[in-house]
Amino acid sequence: MTQMQEARAGRITPAMEMAAQREGLAAEFIRHGLASGTIVLPANINHKNLEPCAIGHGLRTKVNANIGTSPEFPDLDKEIEKLEAALAAGVDAVMDLSTGGDLNVIRREILKRCTVPVGTVAEYQAMVEARRKYGNLIEMTEEDLFNTIEQQARDGADFITVHCGVTGEGIERLKKEGRITDIVSRGGAFMAGWILHHNRENPLYEQYDRLLDIAEKYDVTLSLGDGLRPGCLADASDRAQIHELIILGELVDRAWERGIQVMVEGPGHVPLNQIEANVILQKRICKGAPFYVLGPLVTDVAPGYDHITSAIGGALAASAGVDFLCYVTPAEHLGLPSVEDVREGVIAARIAAHAADIVKGAPGALAWDLEMAKARKALDWQKQIELAIDREKAVRYWQEKNIKDKDENKGKEECSMCGEFCAMKVIGEHLQCDRNKSHKLYS
Amino acid sequence: MTQMQEARAGRITPAMEMAAQREGLAAEFIRHGLASGTIVLPANINHKNLEPCAIGHGLRTKVNANIGTSPEFPDLDKEIEKLEAALAAGVDAVMDLSTGGDLNVIRREILKRCTVPVGTVAEYQAMVEARRKYGNLIEMTEEDLFNTIEQQARDGADFITVHCGVTGEGIERLKKEGRITDIVSRGGAFMAGWILHHNRENPLYEQYDRLLDIAEKYDVTLSLGDGLRPGCLADASDRAQIHELIILGELVDRAWERGIQVMVEGPGHVPLNQIEANVILQKRICKGAPFYVLGPLVTDVAPGYDHITSAIGGALAASAGVDFLCYVTPAEHLGLPSVEDVREGVIAARIAAHAADIVKGAPGALAWDLEMAKARKALDWQKQIELAIDREKAVRYWQEKNIKDKDENKGKEECSMCGEFCAMKVIGEHLQCDRNKSHKLYS
Repeated sequence: MTQMQEARAGRITPAMEMAAQREGLAAEFIRHGLASGTIVLPANINHKNLEPCAIGHGLRTKVNANIGTSPEFPDLDKEIEKLEAALAAGVDAVMDLSTGGDLNVIRREILKRCTVPVGTVAEYQAMVEARRKYGNLIEMTEEDLFNTIEQQARDGADFITVHCGVTGEGIERLKKEGRITDIVSRGGAFMAGWILHHNRENPLYEQYDRLLDIAEKYDVTLSLGDGLRPGCLADASDRAQIHELIILGELVDRAWERGIQVMVEGPGHVPLNQIEANVILQKRICKGAPFYVLGPLVTDVAPGYDHITSAIGGALAASAGVDFLCYVTPAEHLGLPSVEDVREGVIAARIAAHAADIVKGAPGALAWDLEMAKARKALDWQKQIELAIDREKAVRYWQEKNIKDKDENKGKEECSMCGEFCAMKVIGEHLQCDRNKSHKLYS
Repeated sequence: MTQMQEARAGRITPAMEMAAQREGLAAEFIRHGLASGTIVLPANINHKNLEPCAIGHGLRTKVNANIGTSPEFPDLDKEIEKLEAALAAGVDAVMDLSTGGDLNVIRREILKRCTVPVGTVAEYQAMVEARRKYGNLIEMTEEDLFNTIEQQARDGADFITVHCGVTGEGIERLKKEGRITDIVSRGGAFMAGWILHHNRENPLYEQYDRLLDIAEKYDVTLSLGDGLRPGCLADASDRAQIHELIILGELVDRAWERGIQVMVEGPGHVPLNQIEANVILQKRICKGAPFYVLGPLVTDVAPGYDHITSAIGGALAASAGVDFLCYVTPAEHLGLPSVEDVREGVIAARIAAHAADIVKGAPGALAWDLEMAKARKALDWQKQIELAIDREKAVRYWQEKNIKDKDENKGKEECSMCGEFCAMKVIGEHLQCDRNKSHKLYS
């Protein structure tokens, strides 16, 4: 039985217990959310070393890191290094988007080393293998596609992205729309290309029940990909995007009818003032299914800094109700990320998630900031570093800027920004002095 | 006559002309904003090489970089390097916050090299000199303070921050409030300490007309500092902060009565969901005077990444109406920024400003993104790099990730992220192929 089916039967599973504990909430809260579909608990029955983590309404905003080889960089070791960097930086889930090297070996290795939920994209492996088998990716057969999905599910993928919402009707709408960047989702572009080439409907849409069968067997959480997500601000929230969202909403209903866990993916490149509308719309059309967004990026002009453009959009999206943020690294739009890019990407997305969690009232969120504020007021540098979202960077910066003498292992009380003119110190002394006086200030 | 007085007299000055031209707007728009106070044009009559730049309602959001020596790092050359890095990164204004070395020499050198408006903080120099003169900064006299302001104005400071709003009454409110971080503004802490120590009212408040006299003589734009700004999320939007804002609003009226240009400074550390309220309140209470914010930082827990926490807050604040963003660097809360920190800080703030300008409808803002989107669709890497907000970083990243052979001076058509599975390419080919067919898709 899937976690959703168990929840509907009124049972609290060990996975629900563990997820609840990590969240600081009652297991019944998780069970209720799972039963109603507003929470997912991606936990493939074959992912043995998983520490379950729930995603959805009322929970801490989660962060995903995409890793994986590419045709030009098929090095498994490098991707394992990225996996470890992402885990060390506090990521909540990882997607293996490999398209270079032996994809089955890579996925199994990542799953073996990964205690957080692992996601995949069904179509990537299918198109890579079709390219190898037939010399052209577009020659992939329906059987190839479903066999790949079954393979990924059997190996233990906790969630699988499937671009079921890219349909012939949607492509017609896209063509009428006159988009600037057409399609920027790899899976979406591939399925659209397949539909156009074969003049056939998307098998993931047409044979959606077959997909649900596989998902049910291994308790894979389906992540309904937004193949027509906007690839630039000018394409955001257009008819093609919203039409696909409506289809995804219908597919959420059909998954829920069978007790299959499902979440919905979202944009993309979105102007700041359209973000909240996108979240409200997804939550309404998909009846509260968890919302997983890539970004959103609030401008197109900052290659090299898209961890920042997406932290802006992600914070706003999450505060409006998004449950799950896919990180974007500084390498986005320029090439495959390095280990350092992965690390920067995870921290930027975690900052966005945490800024939103404060607003959402997630348990413990504001308390963390309060502790930091008290450590700052006390000029307690040790404590400030312990509380930093990235201790390693905080301590490195602090040491570089404050410890001139290498034999000295602690800096001054105040930092090198203000030195003796430290506001905290100046006002602290005078307020203390004032408290010791009996009189009231002249005013 | 000040630019505001000229504007009220119906005259368009050369500075207004130049500022309008750079903004792509009619000079009359600038004149009208100046006359009504919703725009400032910081242009000290003694800043000879200034290229005037207007700040305020209806204009592109501007970005300021703080530079300056500290007691531990009094090196002028290093600060000049930072100035050059900030200008190269596209900053709109620079503040010299030096507190180490010969402050008059440093300021004059910065002014000489700086074509963008230069700001200072009146109290910093006054307290540094009092420390040297009397052995204790708190022994500064009122004459010392006004002499310093006159000196800075005479030298050509285009805007001067003055913490006039920190009053005895405000300190009493702060004490009743029970703040976590009390005061984190250096100028604010100093003035509050001075008030407590001398048991006297803030001379900048009590003798505000004397300040206006100096501002009028040199056409200095007053930047009313928020000495009681919150230093942590828990202190945001509290009674002490809002009480000071009310005083600043009254002081705006008094500046306008005399035709003195004025803007108002704002927080600080603010939870994401309080940012818009802060902007609406400032604009109402200060009757539309330009709003200049430091951040706001949307979480306290990310030292090393406060350029990101403030880009999130800054984008949101600017989209709600803030006119001027003060950058925050990755070094904030840890020490004096390096040249690289300055550069990262300026770009992060410019991203926030630009994301907001798209929403504000600033002339040319969205067109920039549209050009980038078209270059992406065309897989035109040269053009993408030309259009990047930081060309240097974009080209470095792209080369590192895409050019394996050093003799080769261009990469492949697609980037190393997706390689041959590039969505742009895949869908491009199939849509092109589809256009060449005469039939309609099966759907």
